[in-house]
Amino acid sequence: MADNDSPKAELASLRAEVDEIDQQIILLLGVRFRCTDMIGELKQAHGMDLVDAKRESQQVARIRRLAEEAGVPAALAETILREVIDTVVDHHTRLRERPYS
Amino acid sequence: MADNDSPKAELASLRAEVDEIDQQIILLLGVRFRCTDMIGELKQAHGMDLVDAKRESQQVARIRRLAEEAGVPAALAETILREVIDTVVDHHTRLRERPYS
Repeated sequence: MADNDSPKAELASLRAEVDEIDQQIILLLGVRFRCTDMIGELKQAHGMDLVDAKRESQQVARIRRLAEEAGVPAALAETILREVIDTVVDHHTRLRERPYS
Repeated sequence: MADNDSPKAELASLRAEVDEIDQQIILLLGVRFRCTDMIGELKQAHGMDLVDAKRESQQVARIRRLAEEAGVPAALAETILREVIDTVVDHHTRLRERPYS
């Protein structure tokens, strides 16, 4: 029997898959921040409000539905989305306070 | 000038990209939960500890490094990872308490 059939090897293999997924998620978040940076610049250039409560509630409803379909706890998906949005808004607020820094 | 050059259309286009990324992240989280469910079953079958503090600290260090490389705030990446791990551990703990449910 090959060593990679042992529970320990199976655990290592599954963990490697988890690590790969985490890396892909981080890369996607990086692209997402580049998109939201462009949104922040666009809003600043055209005097649009930074926060859009209607958009945010649509995003939350959508992410909860997608999460349920994907077998992800909806509450976790909502928490993550809200943390990402809060980080984006904080960042845009700082940009607006120091537009030339 | 085409309407899709307006700030409003540009905003809609960037938001569509954000929504697409969010969907991809949720799908990846779904695959991740299937991996961690398999890890939970493996650990249960072989009487391994549910929580592995060393593994978790390695994951946190790695995700912070990947986040910095990808332009994602490291603190946000760590917060998200810890929430995902906590959700996984809660789920495994419940499975272990009711192994046949």
